[in-house]
Amino acid sequence: MARVVTKVDRADATTCAGFAELGVATAHEAQDRTGLLHPRLRPRQSGAVIAGTALTCEVAPGDNWMIHVALEQARPGDILVVSPTSRCDDGYFGDLLATSARARGIRGLVIDAGVRDVAELLAMGFPVWSKAVSAQGCVKETLTDVQVPLVCGDRLITPGDVIVADDDGVCVVPRDGAGNVLDRARRRAALEAEKRALYASGALSLDVNAMRDRLREKGLTYE
Amino acid sequence: MARVVTKVDRADATTCAGFAELGVATAHEAQDRTGLLHPRLRPRQSGAVIAGTALTCEVAPGDNWMIHVALEQARPGDILVVSPTSRCDDGYFGDLLATSARARGIRGLVIDAGVRDVAELLAMGFPVWSKAVSAQGCVKETLTDVQVPLVCGDRLITPGDVIVADDDGVCVVPRDGAGNVLDRARRRAALEAEKRALYASGALSLDVNAMRDRLREKGLTYE
Amino acid sequence: MARVVTKVDRADATTCAGFAELGVATAHEAQDRTGLLHPRLRPRQSGAVIAGTALTCEVAPGDNWMIHVALEQARPGDILVVSPTSRCDDGYFGDLLATSARARGIRGLVIDAGVRDVAELLAMGFPVWSKAVSAQGCVKETLTDVQVPLVCGDRLITPGDVIVADDDGVCVVPRDGAGNVLDRARRRAALEAEKRALYASGALSLDVNAMRDRLREKGLTYE
Amino acid sequence: MARVVTKVDRADATTCAGFAELGVATAHEAQDRTGLLHPRLRPRQSGAVIAGTALTCEVAPGDNWMIHVALEQARPGDILVVSPTSRCDDGYFGDLLATSARARGIRGLVIDAGVRDVAELLAMGFPVWSKAVSAQGCVKETLTDVQVPLVCGDRLITPGDVIVADDDGVCVVPRDGAGNVLDRARRRAALEAEKRALYASGALSLDVNAMRDRLREKGLTYE
Amino acid sequence: MARVVTKVDRADATTCAGFAELGVATAHEAQDRTGLLHPRLRPRQSGAVIAGTALTCEVAPGDNWMIHVALEQARPGDILVVSPTSRCDDGYFGDLLATSARARGIRGLVIDAGVRDVAELLAMGFPVWSKAVSAQGCVKETLTDVQVPLVCGDRLITPGDVIVADDDGVCVVPRDGAGNVLDRARRRAALEAEKRALYASGALSLDVNAMRDRLREKGLTYE
Amino acid sequence: MARVVTKVDRADATTCAGFAELGVATAHEAQDRTGLLHPRLRPRQSGAVIAGTALTCEVAPGDNWMIHVALEQARPGDILVVSPTSRCDDGYFGDLLATSARARGIRGLVIDAGVRDVAELLAMGFPVWSKAVSAQGCVKETLTDVQVPLVCGDRLITPGDVIVADDDGVCVVPRDGAGNVLDRARRRAALEAEKRALYASGALSLDVNAMRDRLREKGLTYE
Repeated sequence: MARVVTKVDRADATTCAGFAELGVATAHEAQDRTGLLHPRLRPRQSGAVIAGTALTCEVAPGDNWMIHVALEQARPGDILVVSPTSRCDDGYFGDLLATSARARGIRGLVIDAGVRDVAELLAMGFPVWSKAVSAQGCVKETLTDVQVPLVCGDRLITPGDVIVADDDGVCVVPRDGAGNVLDRARRRAALEAEKRALYASGALSLDVNAMRDRLREKGLTYE
Repeated sequence: MARVVTKVDRADATTCAGFAELGVATAHEAQDRTGLLHPRLRPRQSGAVIAGTALTCEVAPGDNWMIHVALEQARPGDILVVSPTSRCDDGYFGDLLATSARARGIRGLVIDAGVRDVAELLAMGFPVWSKAVSAQGCVKETLTDVQVPLVCGDRLITPGDVIVADDDGVCVVPRDGAGNVLDRARRRAALEAEKRALYASGALSLDVNAMRDRLREKGLTYE
Repeated sequence: MARVVTKVDRADATTCAGFAELGVATAHEAQDRTGLLHPRLRPRQSGAVIAGTALTCEVAPGDNWMIHVALEQARPGDILVVSPTSRCDDGYFGDLLATSARARGIRGLVIDAGVRDVAELLAMGFPVWSKAVSAQGCVKETLTDVQVPLVCGDRLITPGDVIVADDDGVCVVPRDGAGNVLDRARRRAALEAEKRALYASGALSLDVNAMRDRLREKGLTYE
Repeated sequence: MARVVTKVDRADATTCAGFAELGVATAHEAQDRTGLLHPRLRPRQSGAVIAGTALTCEVAPGDNWMIHVALEQARPGDILVVSPTSRCDDGYFGDLLATSARARGIRGLVIDAGVRDVAELLAMGFPVWSKAVSAQGCVKETLTDVQVPLVCGDRLITPGDVIVADDDGVCVVPRDGAGNVLDRARRRAALEAEKRALYASGALSLDVNAMRDRLREKGLTYE
Repeated sequence: MARVVTKVDRADATTCAGFAELGVATAHEAQDRTGLLHPRLRPRQSGAVIAGTALTCEVAPGDNWMIHVALEQARPGDILVVSPTSRCDDGYFGDLLATSARARGIRGLVIDAGVRDVAELLAMGFPVWSKAVSAQGCVKETLTDVQVPLVCGDRLITPGDVIVADDDGVCVVPRDGAGNVLDRARRRAALEAEKRALYASGALSLDVNAMRDRLREKGLTYE
Repeated sequence: MARVVTKVDRADATTCAGFAELGVATAHEAQDRTGLLHPRLRPRQSGAVIAGTALTCEVAPGDNWMIHVALEQARPGDILVVSPTSRCDDGYFGDLLATSARARGIRGLVIDAGVRDVAELLAMGFPVWSKAVSAQGCVKETLTDVQVPLVCGDRLITPGDVIVADDDGVCVVPRDGAGNVLDRARRRAALEAEKRALYASGALSLDVNAMRDRLREKGLTYE
């Protein structure tokens, strides 16, 4: 019953490149504070910022067979997004799969489960966001779907969506409308740059953002 | 109903400086193993050791409005201590607030919730101890109290108390008696330096601390 | 009633040295994916790989007395394995004990509880795998057993077993048969090196491992 | 920016009634072991089995305003499905909302957060599946969407989908194809009734399901 | 260094009785949604509602000695409040201590740790709110303080404060001002009774609470 | 490589019957507070107390195949003890397996994973102690060992050991020496009966157990 969808519309590469310059927090705010994956997914390196198109892969608990299948579907610029059909922390992905993923043009891995060979992954510079680190090995027995919409980190991810990941976590931006979100994200980043300069000079956000009246109306008192 | 207390008695700067030289474990032991905040609060950098006076700020879940209010109350040498009124992992604090906090003389942040922009915070050298990292943004809708006693990391913290934080976690030392605790902490550190030299030369703590008799009395046997 | 077993048969040093070259994931796979300690035990440093013989020590919750007793039993090449009789995250081990442990020839610590002085441990280069970091200090009141079989990280560990630890976690290899496991681990590592080269050149694991027929038989379809 | 979708196609009542007779485990198996919400959602009563159509409601952390909005959209036979935009355990729902929900024909509540007044809910016989019980009250400040697809318990739920809930947890069956799933579920239930009789008489599942050959082929040995 | 404070001002019995009629959620709301203990403290029975004065007792991890000391300080109408100095789930309290507690007039137990003999406690009708159930026994070795202010369930509790506990959890109401909180709680309960009747007859809370204008102003749209 | 051990020495039935009268807390204390399984294993019913001999079964994550194999090895009076090779909360066991288990003389189930059909299990009166409740179904693909020593709930369990389970949790008593432990347990129960009568009459445990001198020596002060 399991299936691999081979034709996927992907967000365009320029949009992805734009998000990689802005990072997760800005992307998330620019789409009205939606799309952030659960913070249990943590970066396994420091300082990496990537954006790319989602290559989605379901896996059975303790079984990484379908990741092997998914790699064949990769296009350069993809980010592999793996989610188990039931909660599991095993080590689904290590340096061998990373070597193959990189050779296929995959930019990184987002997985709501465990990874292993983390020292090797770090040395290779292959970035990973995972729920756990575990050397626990997997079997190859059970089929699941590849390149179908799935829930990863409590968010719906459709193949071809934009994935943005950095030290703050992972955000999904749906393919449709990703360009508009990017525009808003850029404007937000510009605005923040202005505010940062004001704050650095000692100005208070209470004044920069004109919050004092509303605080008073809501009933704030100073003793 | 929310209020900001504007007059706070703070522990003196020299005492804080003393604790910054000794660190959390020593401060905690010197006050009879009390005052340690729950270890779910983790440093988001490596190697920072700070001590300062608590500037306390309650926040509503998913709402960081009152942090903006709290920054106005800062005095150089303060450490911002933030606790949500109910458990929340959202990203209450990022690089903009850190820029403002630093400009106001704040030495770091202790928060029983989440932070974001962690790469930027690291680059700025603004130290943070938090329960979570999350890019999830906050609203600005609900008032809570600033500079009142609150529970953070399961410990009571009164505005002006000494906060010590390093890679081991965070400890609170009440303002009253902080000088005495510092004296005991210094004596303990001196004692530990002596023991360290003995241990490095191969002496056993069983002998250095004369534990053998008591072990025998309690019934320890060797086979 | 508590006892210290003073005579322990240890796995031989050459075998340990062999495992230190291969790491946790390979050791774990070579014994049919068994022996991995629960991933809640995390390295408190990056890049350390050690293997040695288990020196086991039970401790009461919040009480590190028996670690002092255990250190006397150390032989060069041991790894100290500590497990509380009931779940506890307190800081059982810090830089003083590490100084003594190192002087006695101990290579590192595996503890299903907390440690402290982590900055100093890192500076010393004394590697630790623990469940928690906490400055919470311990008392010295309650006797427990030293050098008896115990469960640590949900796995049975017998004194003298091989312990392998790296950034992926911790694995136990029972002393009996450790040589055979090492042989299998080496063959596996050699095989993986071949595969890595193929994957790096773009070959798919579906072909390298001849998986396509079995996927088809199980019913995988491509759309 | 928040919106309420007022026109929703709902699964038909007869299908829902069918699932209420079969329960969660059977529904879940009948759609190839998919659709089960995360087991962190627990029943707050014992013995209730319900099925109905999803009335979906996003909420902000610590803010239950939109549940009030959602109740107006209820149709008899709906099950209210509530999910916070970021993780929160506060008590979003109590006996007042339950009184209103019941008056509007709602059969029960599924919420990936907390509830309160659980004694009153039990006395009313209004069934609830929640992540937590907490008396922590909510504010009414922030708008979110009602009757849009959302992720609850890590599964995608579209308004009008079938929700089945019992002591085993909660399962979603998408509206399209729910009839076919129900047919398969009924066949499965019939098959299980036959097996149950065989097992009760002492027959082994190894024989009833003819597993012995495959176990031998895979290499199982008896000592 | 440990001490027992023998003179404690307690909230008056009539106030406690009043809170026992209203329950936790109402008490918590009546003091502006403060005072609720962390929901990790769960009732170990169903349907009990109690209110009384806090008899506070610190304990060391895995050590229940001081509970024996605390029982001597009991006055009829007290509720025993126990908190470990570091996190512990052991079984500090069972049917023997409950027998003694009852004989001393204690109404129930609130403990941020584990209990045991839960079947016997249920049979006795001695109500307990605890973080865990565990048969793990305790030692009697370490002194801590009795009848001092402590943090339990992340809230500050001062000896003599009002404790209210029911199936929703546990709430603390500080002794000073408890009468005023009770008045507000009663008014709130009366108001809720009116609303309940309206909701039961089908009225929407949107109308009962006149929320529609504010929703429209904030930008809610209906599609 | 997987194996089923068919010859197992079991603890005798009379000893098991004796433990069933005393329960978990007493058994655990009688063997010096050892043998308690982790409290994450919770009863899924109220009031059941059983004791029997361990029938051990490893399972792969998400795969319950070997439980079918284990049932053939059952002898009347056994308790089925199931532990996954890596952490998993899936529903390994439901009413069909329980029907078969009961027909084979099995008294109950202890599983460090999930179960389902809990309403049916309760109706059948088949007692279960599990880490989770989850309807998530399992596959039947991977072999593991049956009737070998394993770790369940963080404790080592050898086939044929005595398992005692009640509302407080689960305890293992090794087959060798179980008779002696039972004797000590009975003496302890008799002693507790005496103390219970004293406490019920208002005597303080401080006096009954003559604790006052030791408290004074340790430094307890009354203010």
